[in-house]
Amino acid sequence: MDPEDWSEVRRLGHELLDDLIDQLSNVGERPAWTPVPPQVKARLEQPAARLPADFSDVLGELKRDILPYATGNIHPRWFGWVHGTGTVEGALAELVAGFMNCNVGGRDHAAVYVERQVIGWLADLFGFPADSSGLLVSGTSMATILALAVARESVAPGEMRRKGNSAAPGQLVTYASDGAHVSVRKALELLGLGGDSLRRVPADPVSGLDPRALEERIERDREAGLHPFCVVGTAGSVTTGAIDDLAALADICSRHGLWFHVDAAFGGALALSTRLAPRLAGIESADSLAFDLHKWLHVPYDAGCVLVRDPDLHRATFSADRDYLSRFERGTGAGDPWFTDFGPELSRGFRALKVWVTLRTHGLDRLAEMVEKNCEQAAWLARRIADSESFHLAAPTSLNVVCFQAEVPGGASIDSDEFNREILMRLQERGIAVPSSAEIDGRLCIRVAITNHRTRREDLEMLLDAIEEIRREIVDGTLA
Amino acid sequence: MDPEDWSEVRRLGHELLDDLIDQLSNVGERPAWTPVPPQVKARLEQPAARLPADFSDVLGELKRDILPYATGNIHPRWFGWVHGTGTVEGALAELVAGFMNCNVGGRDHAAVYVERQVIGWLADLFGFPADSSGLLVSGTSMATILALAVARESVAPGEMRRKGNSAAPGQLVTYASDGAHVSVRKALELLGLGGDSLRRVPADPVSGLDPRALEERIERDREAGLHPFCVVGTAGSVTTGAIDDLAALADICSRHGLWFHVDAAFGGALALSTRLAPRLAGIESADSLAFDLHKWLHVPYDAGCVLVRDPDLHRATFSADRDYLSRFERGTGAGDPWFTDFGPELSRGFRALKVWVTLRTHGLDRLAEMVEKNCEQAAWLARRIADSESFHLAAPTSLNVVCFQAEVPGGASIDSDEFNREILMRLQERGIAVPSSAEIDGRLCIRVAITNHRTRREDLEMLLDAIEEIRREIVDGTLA
Repeated sequence: MDPEDWSEVRRLGHELLDDLIDQLSNVGERPAWTPVPPQVKARLEQPAARLPADFSDVLGELKRDILPYATGNIHPRWFGWVHGTGTVEGALAELVAGFMNCNVGGRDHAAVYVERQVIGWLADLFGFPADSSGLLVSGTSMATILALAVARESVAPGEMRRKGNSAAPGQLVTYASDGAHVSVRKALELLGLGGDSLRRVPADPVSGLDPRALEERIERDREAGLHPFCVVGTAGSVTTGAIDDLAALADICSRHGLWFHVDAAFGGALALSTRLAPRLAGIESADSLAFDLHKWLHVPYDAGCVLVRDPDLHRATFSADRDYLSRFERGTGAGDPWFTDFGPELSRGFRALKVWVTLRTHGLDRLAEMVEKNCEQAAWLARRIADSESFHLAAPTSLNVVCFQAEVPGGASIDSDEFNREILMRLQERGIAVPSSAEIDGRLCIRVAITNHRTRREDLEMLLDAIEEIRREIVDGTLA
Repeated sequence: MDPEDWSEVRRLGHELLDDLIDQLSNVGERPAWTPVPPQVKARLEQPAARLPADFSDVLGELKRDILPYATGNIHPRWFGWVHGTGTVEGALAELVAGFMNCNVGGRDHAAVYVERQVIGWLADLFGFPADSSGLLVSGTSMATILALAVARESVAPGEMRRKGNSAAPGQLVTYASDGAHVSVRKALELLGLGGDSLRRVPADPVSGLDPRALEERIERDREAGLHPFCVVGTAGSVTTGAIDDLAALADICSRHGLWFHVDAAFGGALALSTRLAPRLAGIESADSLAFDLHKWLHVPYDAGCVLVRDPDLHRATFSADRDYLSRFERGTGAGDPWFTDFGPELSRGFRALKVWVTLRTHGLDRLAEMVEKNCEQAAWLARRIADSESFHLAAPTSLNVVCFQAEVPGGASIDSDEFNREILMRLQERGIAVPSSAEIDGRLCIRVAITNHRTRREDLEMLLDAIEEIRREIVDGTLA
């Protein structure tokens, strides 16, 4: 399968690299999002080919049908969901990882040491002990699954793995904020604990979960014969960026003997900034921590991390002795412990390299500056919206998320949800900008989440101007 | 975080690409594995930097400390565990994915259509219905977890997700061959069903699990009040490459109303070859299927796939309605269903691109040739071993795996396990070749698994010659 002529693939590779750099270096001049044309969709429904094709033709198709229609998060006016921007250095790291083609499940080779180093850096960033264990995974959803699996194992170590959930002394109950991410519930479902075992505790849009309400729920559940075992703190809720009082949660968990897990998917990045880190106070006391590197740390997709304070329990939850995976003191099969001992995946790519390159190149300080800048941009945008008669803030902005409605102009008989949805659609379809949406107090709002190192003040001004224009357009014309 | 000077990063990128192609195009001339030197390990323990670094310096470190110490599976004499070789085209696809930085959790952009197309190709390859659902994941371990979660949901749809495993009408029991991969047990552990709920059925090293013994176990467990719910067929066991009689298992599952999952991690690749595909007969009847693309399909790490016959049940197992993830008819938020509806991950990289590029460039026929070639190479090696007085076959070779012992020469008082382990270590440490090991009938054997498109007949001859030489060396010298 190797090319007969390496010089031809070399030439094509260089040409490809030039095209990619050309596109990325002027990404802001193109639309923030371009719908995939119907003829491209049709071509991407063709059956598999039995015969080989010229690589130059395959690259031609790729450049024509795939490259122009990316998700959009590399654009300076992408504000949708919570997506990071990536970097050119991270992208080049993926090239290296592709060539090296490492399996970082275990064994003894450089990729293993790179991943250990990166995990050490991240443990240190959050004030976790130096001997904490960790694993790079696809994102916080996976990280949460792993963390809650370790939490469950702590209920009856050894027994849980062998006998399953029925080995627990009672029905296991988990607590999280009303604003907690859907992945917490999904994790409990996958673990076979059932989504109903999650108790959602009332939360404030800025200060998060109410610790007193939490403690009452725990006590009530205990009295009802249930077995509370885990509290999930949220550091950065998706809708408003709320951060739970992690120190208070840590204290409650400690007093009640519960596992304390923190979902810091994007909020964890505050730890980079000496100015913002105090808002995470208490995170260093967590038993486990899940966060993303492809969001505010701008590592290319996908990359998340789980950290666990107790490495022995972590290993005991996942390690498996099989002769085929025997460890040796020497040779390729050395390197104990293997990453397969700390998670369910036996094959794992060299995800660590793009993290390593991103952190080595940009350094923690520059990443911190980007986080601070995005928070300042959100504050600026929120002020502009609060000061304008055309807009209405749907929730206070305390971090990097701004939720608002465009006011339906007086006299127009248009439903607010429909009005704002149409604005959102036109913004996206024209490639001007990509906010996403949220529902707050039963009303649809436009949601601008800024985790974007390419965004400048002008991009936010352009967004507001475009909304004003679309507002007038809709009122003057029709909704259809 | 964008470079001030794009021409400098462009120059560095081209230089990097040249280095990578230089290294890959002559990989066979370098050692198959090189231990990571102590000074490199020490450097990979440095703390994170606060300040940015010159990208050229970071690349310099990468080239010095990481690139020379890859896992080794890109080498023509890598025969360890079951690792694919990768291709230069797949590696370049990773570069594109890095630049595009897509999140393929959902929404409407080209990467989504590419992944759908690839899943369609794979469903078609295995004779699954055109409307089957599927998902690219990190590998078969993850794919098995997802498949068994869907299987569990089938026991009491809706109830299982909400109430957890206790909603099942009895203790859920799963069956698999004695030779089944450890990931099956790990999946059941993660799902909270407990590792002990796996019944291992006696198996033959070639024909796999004994269907009669399976049926007896199922009936016995039913009589004992347990709830058999799933059979996992193995298509290619790790130690001997055994393939279960999948048609017989499909029939048993159908008669007993059990879910039929197939672990075809590497054996699934036989489906590519018209000559070998009949050995998988019955796989088209599976309810779910898990297999790897980074093994015998030579997609760079990591890439596996799960296929599920019933797309509605698959979606019902994982989809979650949250306003923040609302779907629209238009704009970026269109594209329903989203891949997040079919698995636990909400953030997902553009893994599909390297699969697409590999299959488009090489075509199914060329991939099939590689599979056939590797099986022929294994058969040739097994014959050479069987014919030699220096070696002893530890199990019959029916696919691509050859397990054998080097005989301890007459007169030498060395334990066979110790002797073979030392041979293995010296092979690896000298970078001659990388087989791994297995335990068969309580004895350590050298295990050569060939899923390597770079391997030529000469590489296997070199392996045998080197073992002969090391054999004599050990007998002449000492074991220490």
